[in-house]
Amino acid sequence: MKIISVRSIILLAFLLFLPLEDASSERIKDISPQTEACIGCHQLYTPGIVQDWLTSRHSKVTPQAAIKKDRLQRRVSAEEIPDEFSGYVVGCFECHGQNPERHRDNFDHMGFKVNVIVTPNDCATCHPVEVAQYSGSKKAQARKNLMDNPLYHTLVETITGVQKIRNGRIIQEKPSAMVLNDVCLGCHGTKVEVKGMKTIRTKIGSIRIPDLINWPNQGVGRENPDGSIGSCTSCHARHAFSIEVARKPYTCSQCHAEPDVPAWYVYKVSKHGNIFLSKHKEWNFDAVPWVIGEDFTAPTCATCHNSLLVSPQGEVIAERTHDFGSRLWIRLFGLIYSHPQPRSGDTTIIRNGDGLPMPTTFSGALATGFLIDKEEQMRRLNKMKAICNGCHNRDWINGHFDKVHEHIRKVDEMVLTATMLMQKAWDMGIEDPANPFDESIEKMWVEQWLFYANTVRYASAMTGAYDYTGFNLGWWELSENIQDMRDMIEVKSGIEE
Amino acid sequence: MKIISVRSIILLAFLLFLPLEDASSERIKDISPQTEACIGCHQLYTPGIVQDWLTSRHSKVTPQAAIKKDRLQRRVSAEEIPDEFSGYVVGCFECHGQNPERHRDNFDHMGFKVNVIVTPNDCATCHPVEVAQYSGSKKAQARKNLMDNPLYHTLVETITGVQKIRNGRIIQEKPSAMVLNDVCLGCHGTKVEVKGMKTIRTKIGSIRIPDLINWPNQGVGRENPDGSIGSCTSCHARHAFSIEVARKPYTCSQCHAEPDVPAWYVYKVSKHGNIFLSKHKEWNFDAVPWVIGEDFTAPTCATCHNSLLVSPQGEVIAERTHDFGSRLWIRLFGLIYSHPQPRSGDTTIIRNGDGLPMPTTFSGALATGFLIDKEEQMRRLNKMKAICNGCHNRDWINGHFDKVHEHIRKVDEMVLTATMLMQKAWDMGIEDPANPFDESIEKMWVEQWLFYANTVRYASAMTGAYDYTGFNLGWWELSENIQDMRDMIEVKSGIEE
Amino acid sequence: MKIISVRSIILLAFLLFLPLEDASSERIKDISPQTEACIGCHQLYTPGIVQDWLTSRHSKVTPQAAIKKDRLQRRVSAEEIPDEFSGYVVGCFECHGQNPERHRDNFDHMGFKVNVIVTPNDCATCHPVEVAQYSGSKKAQARKNLMDNPLYHTLVETITGVQKIRNGRIIQEKPSAMVLNDVCLGCHGTKVEVKGMKTIRTKIGSIRIPDLINWPNQGVGRENPDGSIGSCTSCHARHAFSIEVARKPYTCSQCHAEPDVPAWYVYKVSKHGNIFLSKHKEWNFDAVPWVIGEDFTAPTCATCHNSLLVSPQGEVIAERTHDFGSRLWIRLFGLIYSHPQPRSGDTTIIRNGDGLPMPTTFSGALATGFLIDKEEQMRRLNKMKAICNGCHNRDWINGHFDKVHEHIRKVDEMVLTATMLMQKAWDMGIEDPANPFDESIEKMWVEQWLFYANTVRYASAMTGAYDYTGFNLGWWELSENIQDMRDMIEVKSGIEE
Repeated sequence: MKIISVRSIILLAFLLFLPLEDASSERIKDISPQTEACIGCHQLYTPGIVQDWLTSRHSKVTPQAAIKKDRLQRRVSAEEIPDEFSGYVVGCFECHGQNPERHRDNFDHMGFKVNVIVTPNDCATCHPVEVAQYSGSKKAQARKNLMDNPLYHTLVETITGVQKIRNGRIIQEKPSAMVLNDVCLGCHGTKVEVKGMKTIRTKIGSIRIPDLINWPNQGVGRENPDGSIGSCTSCHARHAFSIEVARKPYTCSQCHAEPDVPAWYVYKVSKHGNIFLSKHKEWNFDAVPWVIGEDFTAPTCATCHNSLLVSPQGEVIAERTHDFGSRLWIRLFGLIYSHPQPRSGDTTIIRNGDGLPMPTTFSGALATGFLIDKEEQMRRLNKMKAICNGCHNRDWINGHFDKVHEHIRKVDEMVLTATMLMQKAWDMGIEDPANPFDESIEKMWVEQWLFYANTVRYASAMTGAYDYTGFNLGWWELSENIQDMRDMIEVKSGIEE
Repeated sequence: MKIISVRSIILLAFLLFLPLEDASSERIKDISPQTEACIGCHQLYTPGIVQDWLTSRHSKVTPQAAIKKDRLQRRVSAEEIPDEFSGYVVGCFECHGQNPERHRDNFDHMGFKVNVIVTPNDCATCHPVEVAQYSGSKKAQARKNLMDNPLYHTLVETITGVQKIRNGRIIQEKPSAMVLNDVCLGCHGTKVEVKGMKTIRTKIGSIRIPDLINWPNQGVGRENPDGSIGSCTSCHARHAFSIEVARKPYTCSQCHAEPDVPAWYVYKVSKHGNIFLSKHKEWNFDAVPWVIGEDFTAPTCATCHNSLLVSPQGEVIAERTHDFGSRLWIRLFGLIYSHPQPRSGDTTIIRNGDGLPMPTTFSGALATGFLIDKEEQMRRLNKMKAICNGCHNRDWINGHFDKVHEHIRKVDEMVLTATMLMQKAWDMGIEDPANPFDESIEKMWVEQWLFYANTVRYASAMTGAYDYTGFNLGWWELSENIQDMRDMIEVKSGIEE
Repeated sequence: MKIISVRSIILLAFLLFLPLEDASSERIKDISPQTEACIGCHQLYTPGIVQDWLTSRHSKVTPQAAIKKDRLQRRVSAEEIPDEFSGYVVGCFECHGQNPERHRDNFDHMGFKVNVIVTPNDCATCHPVEVAQYSGSKKAQARKNLMDNPLYHTLVETITGVQKIRNGRIIQEKPSAMVLNDVCLGCHGTKVEVKGMKTIRTKIGSIRIPDLINWPNQGVGRENPDGSIGSCTSCHARHAFSIEVARKPYTCSQCHAEPDVPAWYVYKVSKHGNIFLSKHKEWNFDAVPWVIGEDFTAPTCATCHNSLLVSPQGEVIAERTHDFGSRLWIRLFGLIYSHPQPRSGDTTIIRNGDGLPMPTTFSGALATGFLIDKEEQMRRLNKMKAICNGCHNRDWINGHFDKVHEHIRKVDEMVLTATMLMQKAWDMGIEDPANPFDESIEKMWVEQWLFYANTVRYASAMTGAYDYTGFNLGWWELSENIQDMRDMIEVKSGIEE
């Protein structure tokens, strides 16, 4: 096995780099020598990402220049940038070369100490406020909240474990790690660990690299080899890191999809989605701050949930946040009943009245101490209403949210009815509560809240997507499911007898 | 509570209006003094809609100018415009200030008599032909046709009423008005009524406004506080009122969605949808008249169903209509069997052979007297074929529609089989025909026509979307459902014994 | 009945053609006299397709000019173009007038010998390499592979045959030809045959034309009246024949749709789909060759499966192919278990260990002799990895495909469990194996592989679309379905007793 000589690579890189410099000399004038070397090779070996980076703001603006903008125009939140990064555009080495001592995935690559994975802690050099906000959010804890909560963990294993027939009975294996990484943890994030080093063959021969497990992954709650959590590239896709892409709802659609978190599917047939799809090619998704009415005429996900918004007169309507729950007073998705947002992004600490790590009991009683109080709920609701008020009058907004809240209550009642039917199945001994997710009636109950109630609650919030409150995972299914659960109890009780 | 002084508001408005006038003085030169005052405040309080309006044709063209265009280019259908509206661009007050005497939602707002809701009757000042066409359509009667038809009303209540367990039995409550408004009536329209006046708090203090119920709503059959029906903003979204948005299929997708009316979902994977999605950014959605081949190279919903179409040589291919059924000879959606379009937009007057308010009996016999006759069907089919003929030759078109009609007949036969199975369940006493929508086998029957037959019929008409005739709510489900209904009858008859 | 005089038509055509020539004289300067005559009338009778053609490359470039380009820039693959076609742009007659002696659909139309259908054999005059590649592919045999395989034929008839109740039992009729053409054969292609001649009425009077059956159709495996197979217009839609349209995933979405072949639905919520949807309006879909990073920054279907790709430095990353399976080592869709790609595009020749025309047995054993071997699999996998390598590094790619392969194995195990349950139902006499597709438990088994396993396998390959591996036709359904099959066996065995 021939390990490539570093010297020949660097030489090659500089030779090859000439055409790029010619073609686009202006764009990359403040490039660091290290990044120049990276690009020299990588424009041959992975040309797509080099080109992608060349389209990025990172390739055109130095932190020194970026930090000088006025507060509302600024895209970096650091008060100061370390000198070594300040004068160069943000290239390969500026990101992949940071904090090598913290990175268990750091390795010697063609003479440079390089990290495989760029983490939120690295991004924090220029974007510390965003990273701090994000790190406290439910998103950052998404892996932990799923895998370290015994109840959810049971749900995960019930879904992704292979079922086999042994001696005429169906048994369930533990899920394969790779399957799990490709299903639940694709969005929630994996725990990426370094097992050691390995040698792989590439176009230019064999090279030694860190041997990572649970990789590749871009889940929002990824645990990184430097000890940080999260993955900025979940939304700011490599290597353009475009604010435009992050602000478009297609990004959110990757994880917030039908049937359990149908945000994108509902949005796109809502009135806001209709206007977005019809008009967004004329909008400005790159402007900071983002001006209501001028840069866009209908909100995308980012508008309501995290962007810095101003009026055409320059009045701040909402401050930027990367804690995506911080404008939300109520939680509609993912759990049995709607409930106030949890106080902490770490939801494994919650205990409900039955001692379970859930924000409500099975019958809907709130785990009050772990959830935000009424005052905080009002504060957040008013923050959201202020955004709506960018286009809608106050009475319209109040009427809208009155309807949403009433609708959510009624949906929660439909879930409670399903819970009572499942309880009946347990009481009759038809199904076994040991695992509340693995038998037919239990699965129907899960669908009642995870699919149908989630969909209706959210569709009610997104005005105008009425097939999702009605026939498409909506009230039709909510009501049909109850009839089917009742019938199934009768049928199964007949079999048991 | 401090009610704001009108004088101070008007003063403020004029002061604040200066910057807008500076920035965009040309766009709004013919603005009325009343609208100028509205904008003075509202560019602060709801800046998004002011900006949205500034992008509109309404903000740039006076009715006086609009009425002078040649017939085919005209966007207003009035022969004369009242003097008071003629010389100003169409601003806030020109719409919200009309017909105050008819509007129970009119109120004194900062010194002006303003209506909360602009209705079709107000739009008719400039667009009387469109409003007249629309008012006679099924769309305009959408609320009435659903809620005043006892059979459909039962379906509505069965779907949206909360089900609870009382003494071990499932009982059904009447639907909450707000839930109903947010499900069925979201598209069909609510009856908006004025209860009185109320005081609300806004950014600038407390103001007195009409207290509306069943509001907000933009359903197509909305009943308005001035006695008119319909909501032009269902499709011409506020406050750009863009013909581009209305002509794009995203608008239709809000209500014509999977699984019951899957128009948009089918269209987008049809050949026409494919070309639209691939090429529409180069098309002209604003041109009046709309030139086949020049302004677009594949039809959207509006092309076939309502737009004024001409050939590049200026020959009229189809006249504009806002009676969306008027180019349709057959009705595919929403009812058990396909049937000729009803004569009247008010379908509550229909009586079938069994005396029920339905266009067919349960076994498919037509309520002939209430449906258009063969001659009218041919007249409308030929109208549609003339549009197809813009791109397709006559033999291709005939072959297409022969296939559609044969396909519909076969689908109707598959529905009839499901109806016979339901009848068997009734005859055996397994389910109760008192409400034909509330038990499991009945719900399977509803899905046979409302989801699967609807989808296949429509997908057959939209050539090229073959997963919707096949596996996606198509023949797979049509055929599987019959097996499942048969099995369920056997299972339930076993339980009953 | 008045048959129109040819002379008057030609005269009319030349008169009418003047305005077009005036308006767009430059675009069509090298037009043949025959095509000029066609357009003269058809700009009146089917103006949309004339305009559509005017937007095409065919209307602007002569084969003579096209053939002179450098190898990588060339869009025609013929080494030589026959003289009679060489100097004219590719107009109506150049395509519809070819090989009249082979075309049973040729007829005398206004003095010209015209074919109704342009076939791959006609396109081969300029594009022979593409036609040769395509003709050997599974796509070209799509009709045959479905209809001439007794097992699949049974599936087709079970789905599309009308079910009726006779003497209290459900019987199944043979499918209507038109229904079949509009469901399965819409994508797979029909066999178009000429029955004779017929007279039809058009805008300009009655004309005599060939009487075709199973027409219109644009399925990929269409059998044409000249004996050729395939339909280039499936993807290169008439009459722009745009490479842009073919390269956009909307084209593929027409047939590769949820739930059985959910390629487009999965792609669009994947990371690649997100970037495509967010950024593609800035990309160049018309460039030949297609430059990674410059012309696009994320792949569409065509990128990975058939386009000629080069790096910005001009290095060929992948050669163009119109055999869409030729970059694929494994087959994920449409069959019970994943398996190596078949050697031949004609899959009717395959025999598995049980003598059935299937690439695996019901228990998953490969029909090895008919499938590509390990070496060929590796060769193709490496071809695909080279494309990934345009943007991703080698370790990332290896990790990705390791995960895909592991995931597919686990999904196949979940299918095997379902197969064993179906076998149990057969063994118990609950259902009848004579037709393995027509009863409830059998249909659940079909859904296990055709919907859920297909979806998960493909979503695993398309990184980032995790709701499709999870809750949307994914592991949730894979696992729920097994519980439901088990329950159904218990229920049905109770009934049988």
